[in-house]
Amino acid sequence: MKRDIGELNVPPRILLGPGPSNVDSRVYRAMLAPMLGHLDPEFLRIMDDVQVLLRRLFQTENRLTFPVSGTGSAAMETAMANCLEPGDTAAITVAGHFGARLAEMARRAGAEVIALEAPAGSAVDPEAARRALRGKKIKVLGVTHGETSTGVLHELDPFRRVADECGALLVVDAVATAGGMPLNVDAQRIDLCFTGSQKCLSAPPGLGPLTAGPRVEEALRARKTEVTSWYFDLTTIMKYWGGERTYHHTAPISMVYALREALRMVEEEGLPARWERHRRNQQALVAGLEAMGIEPIAPPGQRMWTVTCVRTPAGLDEAKVRARLLDEFNIEIAGGFGELKGRAWRIGLMGTSCTETNVLLFLGSL
Amino acid sequence: MKRDIGELNVPPRILLGPGPSNVDSRVYRAMLAPMLGHLDPEFLRIMDDVQVLLRRLFQTENRLTFPVSGTGSAAMETAMANCLEPGDTAAITVAGHFGARLAEMARRAGAEVIALEAPAGSAVDPEAARRALRGKKIKVLGVTHGETSTGVLHELDPFRRVADECGALLVVDAVATAGGMPLNVDAQRIDLCFTGSQKCLSAPPGLGPLTAGPRVEEALRARKTEVTSWYFDLTTIMKYWGGERTYHHTAPISMVYALREALRMVEEEGLPARWERHRRNQQALVAGLEAMGIEPIAPPGQRMWTVTCVRTPAGLDEAKVRARLLDEFNIEIAGGFGELKGRAWRIGLMGTSCTETNVLLFLGSL
Repeated sequence: MKRDIGELNVPPRILLGPGPSNVDSRVYRAMLAPMLGHLDPEFLRIMDDVQVLLRRLFQTENRLTFPVSGTGSAAMETAMANCLEPGDTAAITVAGHFGARLAEMARRAGAEVIALEAPAGSAVDPEAARRALRGKKIKVLGVTHGETSTGVLHELDPFRRVADECGALLVVDAVATAGGMPLNVDAQRIDLCFTGSQKCLSAPPGLGPLTAGPRVEEALRARKTEVTSWYFDLTTIMKYWGGERTYHHTAPISMVYALREALRMVEEEGLPARWERHRRNQQALVAGLEAMGIEPIAPPGQRMWTVTCVRTPAGLDEAKVRARLLDEFNIEIAGGFGELKGRAWRIGLMGTSCTETNVLLFLGSL
Repeated sequence: MKRDIGELNVPPRILLGPGPSNVDSRVYRAMLAPMLGHLDPEFLRIMDDVQVLLRRLFQTENRLTFPVSGTGSAAMETAMANCLEPGDTAAITVAGHFGARLAEMARRAGAEVIALEAPAGSAVDPEAARRALRGKKIKVLGVTHGETSTGVLHELDPFRRVADECGALLVVDAVATAGGMPLNVDAQRIDLCFTGSQKCLSAPPGLGPLTAGPRVEEALRARKTEVTSWYFDLTTIMKYWGGERTYHHTAPISMVYALREALRMVEEEGLPARWERHRRNQQALVAGLEAMGIEPIAPPGQRMWTVTCVRTPAGLDEAKVRARLLDEFNIEIAGGFGELKGRAWRIGLMGTSCTETNVLLFLGSL
């Protein structure tokens, strides 16, 4: 029997998971702008705008700054596939699922991978990393800024020093932090940084903003082998996003409109104010949870501000609680990953979703 | 000086290039549906709908049918990266730019590539292909259904017979034809077929619908090496789009809404009626152009219905004409590629853009 596919009906969720976050109506309206061709002079101007705004978000002068035409994971793969080739060694902080993903992509790019592991629920110790890498020639040191599977934060400056000691490019996964926590690509000398459109920027998912500095450009020129991926090859993509505007592939036009508007909203709020909003609301969330006896997994000082991962009360069917939050209150939070499955909740307060009202509503509903 | 990035203002274009095409207001409205998490049961249902609708578009029962989270080129790379590995040989029809891209991706996937070339502006002759491949063991025969750089069409059935003779998987690039010209994946025994959201389907760019049959699944299981790309690895992506719904990456939610609505419109019109609309409007376009002494490059019988490539009148500055069409009439058409640069126009009549009114308006404006 033929299944009838009716009109689209979607319930209005309050998105307090680890992304996507809620999208502001201004961003939705921007998506409705008329479709343009990807080589239309008007669209090329919009690309310029987006690049200017992304440089302000990342706080960088990097020429090579643009949104990868895919999700945050696509930007992650772009990073690894371009910076690494067979014969290289990469060291990756593995404090959870997303560090493991970064390591996996480095391995698939042909690199030998040194996993810098952390005890469950805590951050990788930069001193331990330094000892593990002493005397080794490392091409890329990959650091997950915010590990959303455990809520753990890696401070970047100590890892920059480790990278300097082994001559490595510092590649930072800021998928769940850019726009929500302090991050300054040039001042912190991050060689390559990427994020996703749907987390602290609160555009819909589908773009992976990325910035790469001069040392990465040099590394690209020095490659002995071609990048295996045509779609993610930075040297050719940048002929489109760079000065030449040579056709590579069709950019996701409406998503670029959305990202532009979301970045304008970031700029209007101002990065410091935006970071402070994320810090303050998470503090309120943690205080409220602790009052119920629910503790974050990451120790104080190692916590992301944007995604909080807590251990669920013993004996509780955590999935049932989440299902009730979703069905009765339209609130989405996420469960745990891997060994935290069934034993943790992950609560995101990112971008548009990060409001006092949402904190109160969530705590009340819980 | 700090550049001020103001409100988004986009002129309303009539998109008669080789894609993107114009987007219907129904599709825009669907994109405004509230954001959902990528594992929300409501979103999983929408994924089911999209898969059902894509199977109807491709006319297939293939389980492995879903939109790749990137543009048509991402789907193209998914095809080559999964079907091929080092040691394999691929034969690719190269009748223009997009055939060459397919060959390039096959090469980057590690395969030895036999380019089946055509004289400029015409289709690859299946008989010549048969002779070139006789006695060779070919893993993939890649055919560009519509080569949008020249407007040339490849009939698929003769290539299916060639593929059968050398035991090859038939992979079809239907980026600019699916939904606009007859294509029947199961009846034509196409092993893998992909398209783009922004051509004859008239959703915004950003998704690459793909379908792969049992012989491709078998080839995936028989691979000796891992797919180099994590993002495009079908075996893991299908745990999300397949029955298990295991998280892989965050789907581009709003784009999936848009594609769902665009596919509903395809279904309401009906494939045969939609194909006929594309055929009829192109006939009118060609008749009008021929009356002005402007001839398609592809010989009759080798023409796509959806993109028409014509030689520009001698001595004419074709770029200037295109600029005037854009500036004065808001009409976008495209120029030629490669050796046709400066000597050709490419006029697309796809999906929502493919109307009698647009044909008349374009001919009148020209």
